Formats: sequence, structure tokens, C-alpha cells
Amino acid sequence: MTVLSSHNPATGEATPTGLRATTTEEVDRIVTEAHAGARALAASGREGRARLLEAMAERLEESRTRLVETAMAETGLPRPRLEGEVGRTTFQLRLFAEAVREGSFLEAAIDHAGQTSLGPAPDVRRMLVPLGPVAVFGASNFPLAFSVPGGDTVSAVAAGCPVVVKAHESHVLTSQLAFELLRAAVEELGLPPGTVGLVHGRQAGADLVVHPLIKAVGFTGSPAGGRALLDLVDARPEPIPFYGELGSLNPLVITSGAAAARGAAVAEGLVASITGSAGQLCTKPGLVFVPSGEAGDELVEKLAAILAESAAQPLLNGGIASSYREILGRLAAEPGVTAAVTAAEQSEPAWAAAGLLVAGTAGLSQVMEECFGPAAVVVRYADETDLVAALSQVPGSLTASLHSEPGESELTRRLVEVVTPLAGRLVFNGFPTGVRVSWAQHHGGPWPSTNTLHTSVGVTAMRRFLRPLVWQDAPEELLPEELRDGHTGAPRRIDGVLHP
Amino acid sequence: MTVLSSHNPATGEATPTGLRATTTEEVDRIVTEAHAGARALAASGREGRARLLEAMAERLEESRTRLVETAMAETGLPRPRLEGEVGRTTFQLRLFAEAVREGSFLEAAIDHAGQTSLGPAPDVRRMLVPLGPVAVFGASNFPLAFSVPGGDTVSAVAAGCPVVVKAHESHVLTSQLAFELLRAAVEELGLPPGTVGLVHGRQAGADLVVHPLIKAVGFTGSPAGGRALLDLVDARPEPIPFYGELGSLNPLVITSGAAAARGAAVAEGLVASITGSAGQLCTKPGLVFVPSGEAGDELVEKLAAILAESAAQPLLNGGIASSYREILGRLAAEPGVTAAVTAAEQSEPAWAAAGLLVAGTAGLSQVMEECFGPAAVVVRYADETDLVAALSQVPGSLTASLHSEPGESELTRRLVEVVTPLAGRLVFNGFPTGVRVSWAQHHGGPWPSTNTLHTSVGVTAMRRFLRPLVWQDAPEELLPEELRDGHTGAPRRIDGVLHP
Repeated sequence: MTVLSSHNPATGEATPTGLRATTTEEVDRIVTEAHAGARALAASGREGRARLLEAMAERLEESRTRLVETAMAETGLPRPRLEGEVGRTTFQLRLFAEAVREGSFLEAAIDHAGQTSLGPAPDVRRMLVPLGPVAVFGASNFPLAFSVPGGDTVSAVAAGCPVVVKAHESHVLTSQLAFELLRAAVEELGLPPGTVGLVHGRQAGADLVVHPLIKAVGFTGSPAGGRALLDLVDARPEPIPFYGELGSLNPLVITSGAAAARGAAVAEGLVASITGSAGQLCTKPGLVFVPSGEAGDELVEKLAAILAESAAQPLLNGGIASSYREILGRLAAEPGVTAAVTAAEQSEPAWAAAGLLVAGTAGLSQVMEECFGPAAVVVRYADETDLVAALSQVPGSLTASLHSEPGESELTRRLVEVVTPLAGRLVFNGFPTGVRVSWAQHHGGPWPSTNTLHTSVGVTAMRRFLRPLVWQDAPEELLPEELRDGHTGAPRRIDGVLHP
Repeated sequence: MTVLSSHNPATGEATPTGLRATTTEEVDRIVTEAHAGARALAASGREGRARLLEAMAERLEESRTRLVETAMAETGLPRPRLEGEVGRTTFQLRLFAEAVREGSFLEAAIDHAGQTSLGPAPDVRRMLVPLGPVAVFGASNFPLAFSVPGGDTVSAVAAGCPVVVKAHESHVLTSQLAFELLRAAVEELGLPPGTVGLVHGRQAGADLVVHPLIKAVGFTGSPAGGRALLDLVDARPEPIPFYGELGSLNPLVITSGAAAARGAAVAEGLVASITGSAGQLCTKPGLVFVPSGEAGDELVEKLAAILAESAAQPLLNGGIASSYREILGRLAAEPGVTAAVTAAEQSEPAWAAAGLLVAGTAGLSQVMEECFGPAAVVVRYADETDLVAALSQVPGSLTASLHSEPGESELTRRLVEVVTPLAGRLVFNGFPTGVRVSWAQHHGGPWPSTNTLHTSVGVTAMRRFLRPLVWQDAPEELLPEELRDGHTGAPRRIDGVLHP
């Protein structure tokens, strides 16, 4: 029986949690309970689910201080960051409640029976329906917004699917508390308890993804962890979708025009983006392309100077901190790479200072490794040809950012063409961290940043947990209300025409 | 060098084709050509792609007689069936042209910059963009509608993706001719030749799915063939979506009320559905649940009588015919299974007569194997409890059909609940074959009928070959026209509100 403890990365202190790893038998019971609750959750309808999401937001808000302080003690993240995260999570719950009520996500469509050029055609009505129980893996870096009550959970519940979360080992008490608050909302609304479940421990995560009643998996974490789970999923007799958000270098390109016109401002913005949340954001700009020449030199000097002065921060856990030091040291030792800022040793093992490496495009392939923490690699390029050739080597990322000037429109257009195949979000004259939660957002990108064509942030994240179902020539009383003639509660496509 | 021949399954005659299997080097050249054409195809815009789809329909129609006669000689399918298939294919091309012009498939959405409760938010604009070259596997049973110019090709081209088709070995001349007609349409519109490509031979298919420039795979075929390709795809360094449409038993349930009220009519409809296209349709009802008792007895007798009188037909190839005989013989030999109609031996090896097996629910697990060809298995059930228990054992299917009477509304509701998790399309008082091509159609279902949450028929099939892309704070001139303020050529969601 593995007893779980909670570590404070800022102090190194360990606290017993009174929790233990979930056994295989318990995982089976929890998933079975989720399965048993699926029909009632779906039957609660859109209004029922919207109210559940709102009740979850209320329960989290009521316990805001306890959540924030529990998470502070487990993650080392500062209070304002975690206060913001509670706000982000409740905002997200309410946005999805709004989207559930709006109803577009159902993709409801009706083709009435009739004569076509191919002969008589039956009445066909299509709508998306919930997939069934979803396994969600909490992420280390967002104990609230990508964890028990995070984007995956919210979108799955909004879609009508029960969720079983595998708590991240780095914040078990925060996960347990958040779970209890979500469960309280479920009970308050009289929904089946299996609507949300929680398991602890690595083996429980493996048990979860191979369980036959689990119908999809949402994962945010390392490429290695994701690949290991994906291999387990691939070996299932019944394939299920695995939505993995993995590693991302998030290239950021500065043209010579932008370096000359506003190099200092770009350097300042970059430092904030690299060091925010101790560099532990999936959209941190890890690879920064800076032109050779004087303006580029000044930008890099400025960047190094501010980074060197930035305060050391605790990372999420000792493993992340030692990996940060290991990768940074290894890349710095590559030929042609210099350390413009060397992350100084810290007295507490989970603390880390910022780092900055500088390489030329010739050494690019040696430095294309994500370094989770407050560091980045600057790549100096000679000219447009050199830059384009270098960018074409960069692996798929969640984001790609371009800093250029209005007078460089032809160059900018060319660079957009080059980075479009590499990224899921193109950021213009800005920084990729701080992902807006909204209707039009997309947080996903080409492999290895994700392995699917979907998003884990924004309203369209629901599509991951829905499947189409068609009713052909169905008696009206057997149709869901959204597919009955005359229904006005959701946008629908009727005989090819969209009715909002 | 493997030389390909064309076999007439109706006569056994083999004709040399002058074609040979595509080598690995040739596959690489063809995929590279597809990749090279991707940008120009995307840049042709929605109007350019709509015109291409229409030009493809025109080229196919112009050569209708040649296509039909070539396919007749390779598939044994009768002229009216293949005439209908040309019509279905051109209808589909024109429907997708209409959908491309309409523009909803882009899922265009704009969230303007502004203050939110979480602070200032950037301008975020989302749209779906083409994925890149798609590999399509032609199916044996639809030489035109699920093959070179079939549903996968049409939806991929409509989405803006170049396509490389792997021709089915059973109809290489039809595939080659259809390819030349599609290529002529591509050339007529001045698009890159790589917009459509064709490869021949099994190894070429394997080479195709592991090629790094292929970004998705569409497959319609056997579970074994699909699983083998899926394993190749899973082993790629970069995962890509594999959209497989595999096997389906398509359960059809007849209640005691329906058996009593219209047993003879149901039997007649069933025979048409079981024997149409020689039973080689993916939605053929393979498993028919009939109540015990007199009305059920009469229905089964009637079904057996008409099936026994139905004419033998050539199957698509000798392999399918021998597999048909093997499976039918093996299932008939299971304990508790009786052959109500024994498919008589035919003088030509690819010909097959209809077959009908009858089992009880106790033996259900022994007869749940798809038998591609003009045969079905009747399962006699004792009562509602027995029926529900039996249905819960049935694997995922493309369709599930219910024949019941208005007076049985409670029973019907219960059966709908039981079969919903098993199927992608619920058919009421009808037969599942004859899949309408339309906006609201869904042709897909739970594993093993397909392995994803998507359709291969109907307008929404396009979603398989698109990925979301977001432009954040982009200068207007760098946005696609559909994402610029004031554009009216496509439905969009603006600040959360749908504008059709």
C-alpha cells in the first residue's frame, strides 16, 4: 500500500496526506461507477449540465482561499498566480455552461425525407452525443486549470461524459480537495456520484487507460509520459481516442526590423514570458530566433541582463528541477552553444534560477529539446534564407510567434507561410503565454505538441468527447428534443440551411 | 515487378492490364508530388476547390458508359447498380462543392480583443485548415463511390488536401480510368498534378501509410486489413489519424408486434437488403432478431423461402467468395445453429447463392462474425429480457434497426436505449442499406465498425482532414479572407454569437 505524501518544493518539507495509491480493484469500481452514472448525466440534458458546471464554479469559489493555500504549499507557485488560476477555472466552467445552453456544439442537423436526384431519401437527423466515461490526467503545472477541475474535465462534463481524473503526484492534496468540491456540486444537483471520480498513483493511471469502460483519455504532460500512455491505449482491443498535449518549443522569431525598432521592449516581454510561472507553461517561448548584427546583439544582451537579474523560483517538484538543470547543462555543453546566463546553483534543490543559451543556426538540431523551467535558447540567424532553413527544422509546436515591422510585409508573409505548418496558434507581435479561454481559441498543434486535431482549451474542446449519432425515420417521440421539428433551443442545419 | 491483371468474377476470365505494382521509390515520388501541390490547392480557395469537384463530376459523367462497363467486367456488379454508383459519386462531388462554397465547415470564429473578467484578452481568430496529403484506400465493394473518386477522396479534396489513392486489387482498371478522369479535371483547372495520385499493390499501400509526408489515412475494408494498417500507423514516429471503416453486423430487431402486424413485408424488405449488391454492403443487416412464437416462425419461413429462390450472383472476387463459403459453413456447423437456406455450390468459383442461418440467443456468441455476401443470421429470442441480454453482447456497428409497432412505445424506447451505444445510425421500421449522402448523414459507429468519432459519408466527413489554426492579433492583410472583419462569405461565430 503506497502512502502518498505532499512535498512543498519551496521548502523541501514533506507532509503525510492520509491518502494512498488507488488499487486496480478500486480503479475498476470507480470506472464502473462512472459508467453507471453516464446515462443519468446525459439525461440531465443541457440545462442540467450547465447548472452542474455553474455549481462546480460556485463550490470552487467558496473554497478559494483553501484551494489557493493548499496549492501554494504543493506547487511553489505564488499566491497571485494561483488566485488567477481559480479565476480562470471558474470562468471556464461558466463559459462552458453558456456554450452548453447555446447548443451549437451538438451540430444538430435535419435532412427531411424527400425526392432527390438519386431517388427517394429517408428522413435523417444527426446530433453529437456523449462518448461515455473519460479518463483525465492532471497536469503538474496547472493544479486547478489543467487538473481535477481543468479544461479536460470541464469539456468532458459539458459534453455529458463522466470523468475519472488521475491526480498528479505533485499536488495530491489540491487534487483531493478540488475533487471533493466538484463531487459536492454533483451531489447538490442530485446527479450520480460517478459523474466525477478521482484516482491516485501511477499504476492507477495505467489501469485507467486500459479499462474497457473508459472511452477517451485527456492528457497534458511530458512527451515520454504521453507516449507511454499512448502505447497502452494502442494495445487496447478497442481503440479509443487519446488526446495528448505533450512538448512544445514554441518558436518566436524576431525580424531585423523588429530588433532595430523595439529590441528592448521585445527583450522585456520575452523575459516575462520565459520566467512566468517559473517557465513551466506549455506555451513558453523556448526557441528565440534573433538576427545577427548590432540590433540583435543588443537585444540578446538586454535579454541576458534582465534574465540574470530575475529572482530564482521554486519549480513544481524536485524531478522537474533536476531535469531542468540536467537539460540546461547538457545543451550548454554542445559545441557552438554558449551560456549567456548560467542558472546559478540554489540551496534548496527544487529552486531554479533563469538560464539563457545562445547558438547559431548550424547547431540548431543540438538545442531543440524542451527545457521545462525559466530558460530559453536564442538562435542567431544570418539572413532570411538562413532563418527559413532553420525554421523548417523546428518540430510541431502549440504556438509560433512573429515579431516584425509594418515595413516588412513581404518577409512577414513568407515567415507566416513557413511557420503555419509548425503550429496551432500564430501570435503576431506578442508572446504565446497567457492562453485566452474563449470560443475561438485553439490550444493544440502538430506532433509532437499534440497527437490529434483537437484543442484542450476553448469551447471546441468539447468535440473530443462526442460522437455523431443519426436517427433515420424516427418517430418524433423517440427523437432528442433538439432534433424535433420546430425546436428553437439550439442552432440547427435544416435541409442544408443553417438556422442560428 | 508485379504485373497486375484484372479478373472478371462473373466469368473467371483474367485480362492483362498493362499496369504493375508501384515501387517504394515511386510511392515516395508520388507522395512528394502531393506534398508539393498542397499549398497551391489550399491557395485555390473555396471557389477553386468547388470548381475542381464539379469538374471531376463532369469528367466522370462524360465517361459514364466506359466507367460502368469497366467496373462491370471487374466487379460482377450489374449495370443498374453501377449506373447508380456513378450517379451517387457525381451527386456527392456536387454536394461537397456546395458545402465548400457554403463555408460552415471552416468553423470560422472571431473573439475580438477586449477586457474580460480575467483581464485584457488578445484578438483570437480560429479556422480549420487543410491537414496535408491524405492516403485513401479504395474499397472492394464500391469501385466508384468508396474508391478512387469516393467519399474519402471527395471529402479530402473538399477540405483542401491532396489525395493519394491506393487502388483496390479487385478493380485496377476501373481505378486507373477513374484516376485519369480526376487528373484531367485537375489539369483542366491548372492545379498541381499532385492534387490526386494513384498507387497500385499491397506493398505500395504499406509504404503510403508510413510515409512522413502523409498526414491522414482513410480506409474502408476488412477488420484484419484495417488493423494491419493501423498497427503500421501506430508505429510511425509521428502519429497521424487513421480513419478506418471496418466490419459491421448491423443488428436488426423485429418486435413481436411488428412480426405479427407485417412479418411478410419485413421479410421481403430484409431479403432485398441482404441480397442487394450480392450482400456486399457495409450496412447489410447481418444479425436479425426475431421473436419466438408463431408470427416469428412465419416470418423466418417467409424469409427463408424468398432467399432460397433468389438468384445466385457473382461476388467481387474469388477471395470474398471463398471466405463467404468458409464462414457460412463454419457458423452452420456450430451447435444450436441450423441452416434454413444452404447456399448451393456454384459452377463458377466467384458466384454465390444466398444463405440463412438460425440460432437461439444462447448460441449468439458463436455466430457474431460478419459474413460478407448474401447471407444473414436469424437469432430467435424468447422475450424482452432475453432480447435485451442478447443485444448487449452485440459489438459496435454502423447501424442498428428496429421494427416495432406504435402500440409498443415503451418497449421501443427501451430497445433504443439498449442499441444506442452500439451504433452510429438508428433506423426505424426500415433497412440500413442505401446510405443517404446528405448534410446530416453519419456513416460510422463504435468499434469495431470504425475506430474514430467521424463519418465517411456526408458533408461532415470533411472534418477528418482539417485542423484548427488560430491567428492571434494578426494584421488584417495576413488573415484568410474568411477571418477578416466584415467578410460575409461564410457563417462565423463572432464574440460567441453565430452569424449564418
